[in-house]
Amino acid sequence: MNSSIVNVSRPLFVTSGEPAGIGPDICLDLARRKGVRPIVVLADKDLLKQRAQKLGVAVELIEYQGQDCVAEDGQLFVHHIPVNVPVIAGQLNPKNADYVIRQLDFAAQMALQGQSAGVVTAPVQKSVINESGIPFSGHTEFFQEKAGVDRVVMMLATKLLRVALVTTHLPLRQVADAITTERLQQVIDILIADLQRKFHIANPIILVCGLNPHAGEGGYLGDEEIRIINPVLKHYQQNGVNISLAMPADTLFNPEHLKNADAVLAMYHDQGLPVLKSQGFGEAVNITLGLPFIRTSVDHGTALDLAGTGRASSSSLMVATDLALQMASGDQTDDHC
Amino acid sequence: MNSSIVNVSRPLFVTSGEPAGIGPDICLDLARRKGVRPIVVLADKDLLKQRAQKLGVAVELIEYQGQDCVAEDGQLFVHHIPVNVPVIAGQLNPKNADYVIRQLDFAAQMALQGQSAGVVTAPVQKSVINESGIPFSGHTEFFQEKAGVDRVVMMLATKLLRVALVTTHLPLRQVADAITTERLQQVIDILIADLQRKFHIANPIILVCGLNPHAGEGGYLGDEEIRIINPVLKHYQQNGVNISLAMPADTLFNPEHLKNADAVLAMYHDQGLPVLKSQGFGEAVNITLGLPFIRTSVDHGTALDLAGTGRASSSSLMVATDLALQMASGDQTDDHC
Repeated sequence: MNSSIVNVSRPLFVTSGEPAGIGPDICLDLARRKGVRPIVVLADKDLLKQRAQKLGVAVELIEYQGQDCVAEDGQLFVHHIPVNVPVIAGQLNPKNADYVIRQLDFAAQMALQGQSAGVVTAPVQKSVINESGIPFSGHTEFFQEKAGVDRVVMMLATKLLRVALVTTHLPLRQVADAITTERLQQVIDILIADLQRKFHIANPIILVCGLNPHAGEGGYLGDEEIRIINPVLKHYQQNGVNISLAMPADTLFNPEHLKNADAVLAMYHDQGLPVLKSQGFGEAVNITLGLPFIRTSVDHGTALDLAGTGRASSSSLMVATDLALQMASGDQTDDHC
Repeated sequence: MNSSIVNVSRPLFVTSGEPAGIGPDICLDLARRKGVRPIVVLADKDLLKQRAQKLGVAVELIEYQGQDCVAEDGQLFVHHIPVNVPVIAGQLNPKNADYVIRQLDFAAQMALQGQSAGVVTAPVQKSVINESGIPFSGHTEFFQEKAGVDRVVMMLATKLLRVALVTTHLPLRQVADAITTERLQQVIDILIADLQRKFHIANPIILVCGLNPHAGEGGYLGDEEIRIINPVLKHYQQNGVNISLAMPADTLFNPEHLKNADAVLAMYHDQGLPVLKSQGFGEAVNITLGLPFIRTSVDHGTALDLAGTGRASSSSLMVATDLALQMASGDQTDDHC
């Protein structure tokens, strides 16, 4: 996004995530950007201060109390959420697990009440949350439950490519059985609706990967394309949707095919994401489609060993916040898919 | 390969493949290259003449009779294998199916007798061969059977990347069960041996993809990494092999990881090939490891609609022949993986 002032009336809420990870570090970088972006970080103010000192970063933290968020260079709006016990960078502590959940709760609440432009999430550590006794399978599932929607769709985007997934974090041996008519229809409906509503693309062009190598090669290498996938896709085609039939995944990502496509729909995680991340690592944004609000996320983990060292890269957070604001403002410039 | 004269004493045999496809067209382009390459095309001489006329290409066809193959610009050595019935570009004819098999038979025979530098194959049309009553599942299986070896390994290479596959043309739902200790060991043994013997890399560095998303995330997303894959890889590590444990496929292809790697081992077709082909489409070469001779292949099909039109690209055939000659000559310059 090139515009330096973003025209949205409500702020974007950024959850700083796991306090022992790089979340606080990269959130501090939000204060060092040119241009005015209405952003509020959800974090413990003292933790941010301490982390800033450790990193030798000068930052002025301003407590958010519903005011307009016009931050000057070096300023950062923060909604204070207190940690339970002091944080040591790099050391997980189950006693602070619910601190992470309180960030997400607040972000969801503000978004569902229409008080925010959207939610951007820094990484959390699933294991320590579960260890503390709070069942937690991921940000996506958390927001899905809060919003009360049946299905959401994970999409990753770089400057070059958008890839949505029919199945996500599923053992490979369970993937084929998870490709059902019902799931495909739900995912495609959400993908089309959100490309229209959140990405402002009136008639999106979608390319779809087959499940099997060579998209099944006419049934010779698997029959899910014939039995399930292509009948669903033909139905959309007959209704005027610009969607392909199942294509071989190994040739679909040819730049010639992608030139005019708005999104690729891959059947599973490792079919769609290696190519996307290889082209835009550190600049990929994870977007949850199907929620009643905008939610983007970084594409990396907590990187505990880098917390407080100054070696964490905030580039993914920067593109995730920019993309969320761009989506919220209805800006149709396509400099980041 | 930059050298214009290749120092191999025996010629490379190039099968022209399906006569109605683009195989003859792209083989004719071999006559129009700068530099001396000892290449013999296996084809019907009259078919090549007709196709050259159709394409408006001037070429002098020299019948190969065991002589040294020093072709000048515009010349092409041909070992004549007659078609059964006249060929019409773009129209498959089962009556010529055994013409394709006779090319492959001759190429295999010469290679196994040590009379050739290796074999490069242009595309065939599996369906028409089978339709004619000859059971044929592919070039790879054909050469494997002729050579009498238990297992071969498919590897694709571009200038940037080599990707070998543990499983190849298998429906996705059968992949997980095909990842066995025995198969993994056979594949890794062949990969290491051929990187050493055919690619002249003394101590290859190999990165291995997990089967499941996030390489199973500690068993949370599938347990094949814990039960099967990592125990095998640890065994190789303990024996001094420079091989990784199972890595998440979506982050493995980060250029930072690949920088020092000689090859990536992917568990299945659509995990490894989309990223490779997206980076080097039209310049990817298919290499069969585990044969007692060198065999490379183009990475595209017969493109029947392009045969005789002048619109077929021969770039994949050019890199496939260059790579085979480079492997045969022991040239270690790494301008094509």
